[in-house]
Amino acid sequence: MSKYWSETVKGITPYVPGEQPGARKVIKLNTNENPYPPSDQVLEAMKAAVSERLKLYPDPECKGLRQAAADYYELPLDYIFAGNGSDEILAFCFKAFFNPGETILFPDITYSFYEVYARLFEISYEKIPLDEHFDIPLESFFGPNGGVLLANPNAPTGKFTPVDRIRQILEHNPDKVVIIDEAYIDFGGESCVPLIPDYPNLLVVHTFSKSRSLAGLRIGLALGQSELIEGLNRVKNSINSYTLDAVAQVGGEQSLRDTAAFERNVRRIVETREHTVKSLRELQFEVIDSRANFIFATHPGIPAAELFDALRQRDIIVRYFAKPRIDNYLRISIGTDEEMEALCRALEDIVR
Amino acid sequence: MSKYWSETVKGITPYVPGEQPGARKVIKLNTNENPYPPSDQVLEAMKAAVSERLKLYPDPECKGLRQAAADYYELPLDYIFAGNGSDEILAFCFKAFFNPGETILFPDITYSFYEVYARLFEISYEKIPLDEHFDIPLESFFGPNGGVLLANPNAPTGKFTPVDRIRQILEHNPDKVVIIDEAYIDFGGESCVPLIPDYPNLLVVHTFSKSRSLAGLRIGLALGQSELIEGLNRVKNSINSYTLDAVAQVGGEQSLRDTAAFERNVRRIVETREHTVKSLRELQFEVIDSRANFIFATHPGIPAAELFDALRQRDIIVRYFAKPRIDNYLRISIGTDEEMEALCRALEDIVR
Repeated sequence: MSKYWSETVKGITPYVPGEQPGARKVIKLNTNENPYPPSDQVLEAMKAAVSERLKLYPDPECKGLRQAAADYYELPLDYIFAGNGSDEILAFCFKAFFNPGETILFPDITYSFYEVYARLFEISYEKIPLDEHFDIPLESFFGPNGGVLLANPNAPTGKFTPVDRIRQILEHNPDKVVIIDEAYIDFGGESCVPLIPDYPNLLVVHTFSKSRSLAGLRIGLALGQSELIEGLNRVKNSINSYTLDAVAQVGGEQSLRDTAAFERNVRRIVETREHTVKSLRELQFEVIDSRANFIFATHPGIPAAELFDALRQRDIIVRYFAKPRIDNYLRISIGTDEEMEALCRALEDIVR
Repeated sequence: MSKYWSETVKGITPYVPGEQPGARKVIKLNTNENPYPPSDQVLEAMKAAVSERLKLYPDPECKGLRQAAADYYELPLDYIFAGNGSDEILAFCFKAFFNPGETILFPDITYSFYEVYARLFEISYEKIPLDEHFDIPLESFFGPNGGVLLANPNAPTGKFTPVDRIRQILEHNPDKVVIIDEAYIDFGGESCVPLIPDYPNLLVVHTFSKSRSLAGLRIGLALGQSELIEGLNRVKNSINSYTLDAVAQVGGEQSLRDTAAFERNVRRIVETREHTVKSLRELQFEVIDSRANFIFATHPGIPAAELFDALRQRDIIVRYFAKPRIDNYLRISIGTDEEMEALCRALEDIVR
């Protein structure tokens, strides 16, 4: 604590990202990265952008990247906002759409960054308890509120909420923004993007860090009708006119154009996930049905914290959250087939 | 205006960056970019970082870049904060160090983004009028306040405030943070960085967009004692754990290590600036003594707005601010010798 910190900053608890083990050789299944690299087409385009032109500011409007997104999602250009990772975009949303006195709603079990944003920007919030199956109690999101924030599929559970249920939440909140964080949507969920033309209160947030193999590049998108996008632009242009560097803009644009490589990698990860779920269930794990690139699992005989440590001793890093209701679960990212086989062998060794 | 925007966002006026003319062939002297490219060493290091490893998150602590900065500035590693451009760092400062009820101080004529941050984060502020020579009235920064923010050299005037005067402001504000935005310090000013060990209330902010020829890459640094750096980290980790992508981190690190190319370019720009000032004064322009990579000039016979338009018709873009006290000045970035000769020829043609 420092006397120089603002009162807000004295009171917050920042988010703690999953460990990045650096050069140490481990099987890294803790931050939901993609085990497959970005395509050569993406890398070549980026290398070409590493040029003398870096002396100039990048395009503050990210038009090339946004046009590629407009083509990919079949939306108008002014329905697209590009940011320095979806985390930054979500932070901007809190400033753009929520007011301190109006309580926003999100589930008690979800991406833990939401609570961090709310505390930084002093937005009051209520955490709606998920039911015993980790499903969303729909009616709890129908009452008066200052906005709604849902991850779909949810994190860290991987559970998917059907689009028809999201539509009901949108119908009940015509005057408030409903943000659907679809960071993991490409791994088998159904996106809410097709609802955008019908719902001016819907904002969908995507990231390039998971399905697009570009966690190192920091790109996210927000998709919604133009007045929501303009609200985000007002916040961005009051913080940093140029949030995306010139090289990242080109990499993101190529990723959206090179759909074949992207779809092939997603398919492989889904296959590996289903195979891993089957193997873990054979080891008596309870595994929640996942539509993400991770699984959420618990074992009836051994506490998750012990499993976490035992895996770590075998140089396999997964994620463990010491939080109410989920402190007996492990969140395990889906790696390559070889990595997941090593995980299953290690767990078999531990649980026997 | 949208009913979905927060009350704050309804009331703000975002910053408007200088125009980026895209592919059109112009002499671009409007955003204080460096006319010389980053060195081959910087570009080669970045190309090598465009690799499969982009599938992984970057180092959230930017240790390589920060260690290079620690070596360059001869400061401990925990005195260094790295961000996605100095604009983002300044925004974080408002959240980290200033409280809504405590009025912060900055000059009436300075980087216009400061007022934008204050309004976004609802920090009350007072604009201290510069004297008739655009110098800082020192005593005005000695009274009770919530913090002080000064650009040195100042923008858009280019005027330098001697370090001894900054030291007096630091002495009079022991309990409040004094932020010195040294975006242009490398072009002939004397940095406040050597004061950091003596003043726990001093934060110095630097950018790679001007002297380091990397505007397209978005890198800034904050330098100060560790408790200030920790305050910034708390804000960053409540917004976006990974603000700097993996390629940018490597480019920034190499730029700090490759001092020869950097110093050569700075020297050329300073020489070109002095030559340009001389030429403009011969054309009867009043030019403020500049320690930056731009000059601030006015002509007794022709209004600045007219000069701006006349230059534009000749495909030379400079910056004009239609603001009180400075609406008869042009801010002209220093380009190559050839570009500045073209500027002087054009102005000679216009003023005769």
